[in-house]
Amino acid sequence: MKPTGLEVDIARRWWLAASASGAAAGLAGWSPASFAQAKPLPPFASFKDASRVIVHSASGIETQRSAFGSSGVTDVDILFVRNNLGAPDAAIVANPDAWQVQVDGVTNPRALTVAELKRMGLANVAMVLQCSGNGRGFFAHKAAGSQWKVGAAGNTLWSGVPVKDVVTALGGVREGMRYMTSTGGETIPAGVDAATVMVERSVPWTALEDAILAWELNGKPIPLAHGGPLRLIIPGYYGVNNIKYVRRLAFTPTETVANIQKSGYRVRDIGKKGDPTQPTMWEMNLKSFVTFPSGGESLRAGTLQVHGVAFTGGSPVKGVEVSVDGGKTWQAAELFGPHMGRYAWRQFTARVNLQPGSYLITSRAIAVDGSVQPELRVENERAYAHNGWRDHAVAVKVA
Amino acid sequence: MKPTGLEVDIARRWWLAASASGAAAGLAGWSPASFAQAKPLPPFASFKDASRVIVHSASGIETQRSAFGSSGVTDVDILFVRNNLGAPDAAIVANPDAWQVQVDGVTNPRALTVAELKRMGLANVAMVLQCSGNGRGFFAHKAAGSQWKVGAAGNTLWSGVPVKDVVTALGGVREGMRYMTSTGGETIPAGVDAATVMVERSVPWTALEDAILAWELNGKPIPLAHGGPLRLIIPGYYGVNNIKYVRRLAFTPTETVANIQKSGYRVRDIGKKGDPTQPTMWEMNLKSFVTFPSGGESLRAGTLQVHGVAFTGGSPVKGVEVSVDGGKTWQAAELFGPHMGRYAWRQFTARVNLQPGSYLITSRAIAVDGSVQPELRVENERAYAHNGWRDHAVAVKVA
Repeated sequence: MKPTGLEVDIARRWWLAASASGAAAGLAGWSPASFAQAKPLPPFASFKDASRVIVHSASGIETQRSAFGSSGVTDVDILFVRNNLGAPDAAIVANPDAWQVQVDGVTNPRALTVAELKRMGLANVAMVLQCSGNGRGFFAHKAAGSQWKVGAAGNTLWSGVPVKDVVTALGGVREGMRYMTSTGGETIPAGVDAATVMVERSVPWTALEDAILAWELNGKPIPLAHGGPLRLIIPGYYGVNNIKYVRRLAFTPTETVANIQKSGYRVRDIGKKGDPTQPTMWEMNLKSFVTFPSGGESLRAGTLQVHGVAFTGGSPVKGVEVSVDGGKTWQAAELFGPHMGRYAWRQFTARVNLQPGSYLITSRAIAVDGSVQPELRVENERAYAHNGWRDHAVAVKVA
Repeated sequence: MKPTGLEVDIARRWWLAASASGAAAGLAGWSPASFAQAKPLPPFASFKDASRVIVHSASGIETQRSAFGSSGVTDVDILFVRNNLGAPDAAIVANPDAWQVQVDGVTNPRALTVAELKRMGLANVAMVLQCSGNGRGFFAHKAAGSQWKVGAAGNTLWSGVPVKDVVTALGGVREGMRYMTSTGGETIPAGVDAATVMVERSVPWTALEDAILAWELNGKPIPLAHGGPLRLIIPGYYGVNNIKYVRRLAFTPTETVANIQKSGYRVRDIGKKGDPTQPTMWEMNLKSFVTFPSGGESLRAGTLQVHGVAFTGGSPVKGVEVSVDGGKTWQAAELFGPHMGRYAWRQFTARVNLQPGSYLITSRAIAVDGSVQPELRVENERAYAHNGWRDHAVAVKVA
């Protein structure tokens, strides 16, 4: 099978995106492994497995597509990292139980330590944590920020107290509150207007239903790089809403005026500035991508178990289809492995039989409500929310 | 609340068990942490987190009760290790895809490499891996072997090919076969009769239904210490049946004559020798234990979220009850977190309100078929299959 014009075009755009992200040109630059060696791990993420991640910057680390495996849970040693502001001093995770969060907008507002939270309830949720900009590296307009491909996402297990248990213990949400507004514990640099840099996000207050204040990630206290000692977890919402080192959780009548809410994380046309009238990055859209093959392999002909992951913050994933010809034809994939709940990702696999030739392998997820993962990205200034299956295809050669 | 005679008796027996395992007498010897420092990690398990495991010997490493957390999956860095024979040379995991397993007792017997297996099918299962002797440390008769308390068990994710896919590809199981007999890749020491030491186990051939030939554990290639490059996984069956470095998988008319099957892993009265007429360690029984508190803590009075895990190889777990008074009264616990399938463990939690005093906290699991985890261990020569809730209680002081 020869690549079609369409396939060549996709491959070319993939290469351009790879080049734009700073990798060397040519085949060496193609491989995710070459990114991994480009920059050292920042100290607060020194526990990451350097051979299985891509270091974009001191505050941007991505999981290599080939590192996800097929076990359904993403290890902390490869989980992506994205910080909007430098992390607080590591001293805050030395005694996690002492960390305090102020809860406001409830009948009886008060500060609670993690030790107190641990006595108020316990839940554990499997959920996809994904950066709003995951897939930015596939856009052509060179939006600022980490040029993530697929790996600014992972399926993770968080333990903590349900926010609704905390709210109930404090007498309930006060009347007239429409948002749950949370503030991170980052230090605001001296001389800077706090609102311009602070990490404070508002989500609809009803998001409290599934939210937890979490102190544990994948079985261990949350490391600083992932928001320990305490992180607000809102299953189904993009990463930015899952406030790290959360120091205040407030029910508020209006959205925060912090730039990260007001103008940041807003979806708008290329060239436009952000403003509060534009959609903000809340629930994640329907998405899937293939993790094996991971692209660039030379494979022997024969049957092959293509596999990958599918997830959403909306109507649950019902099924996945796989294409090996860049989307011309599709076959149903099988969902496999434990079903860890609607906010976790489902793994899918499809057995394909590949004769010698070049292939573009991709997937598209289908939701319970009938919606289907789209073919194309929606062009937007900040390159957010990419779930187009075309750009996520992997190219392989079969001999 | 003062401890009753019964509680004192339980605590005394716990202490005796702790002393028998080689820890120093006194409170220091009580703490699992002190075990951790007693012996260094063996080289093949050097990646374990020494501060969260108990090293019994070079082939016996246990997870500390306090290390399980509440995320539902047991990290490889704390997962228990038990080897019946020294592991093969680490060279076998350098190129996992090249490992071969001979499949016999099928219409078309042949050797298959891991690379070939990966093209035949893909499954992922969450399951409790548990040593037959888990809980041996609670027995009073000082059975030989590692004095495990609760931590020779973990909930793990395995990826591989379903054995039934392999069998189907090879034309099906031959007529008259009643067992699935698998052989480990350990090197038999020179001058020793292989049958006396080889790791070869037979299980009912119908166990193939859920079994997989696995190459991945919790997202990564299986490390040597856990049976990489290829391990037979039989969900619901005790650890010994999950053959490491599996080099042969055969359907056979009779059980293997290897000692590990013929006389080892047989449940019999204390003082008796093992023989094939006795029950062998196949499906795991119904069990639960509390992981928080983990024992020995001094806690502040007030509400507390007791939590732990429940699992079985039989009728699925339906619910769990918790007692804080050594089994005199019980309250229903809530199951929480992702339900990862019938062979995984379920997490449970119960909110209790503890006034100053001494408490014995334990749990008992209830299965769908109505069976209930028993109070007492069944005394047996090798101290296998301990699921009695009384011995698994943890003692705490509340001030």
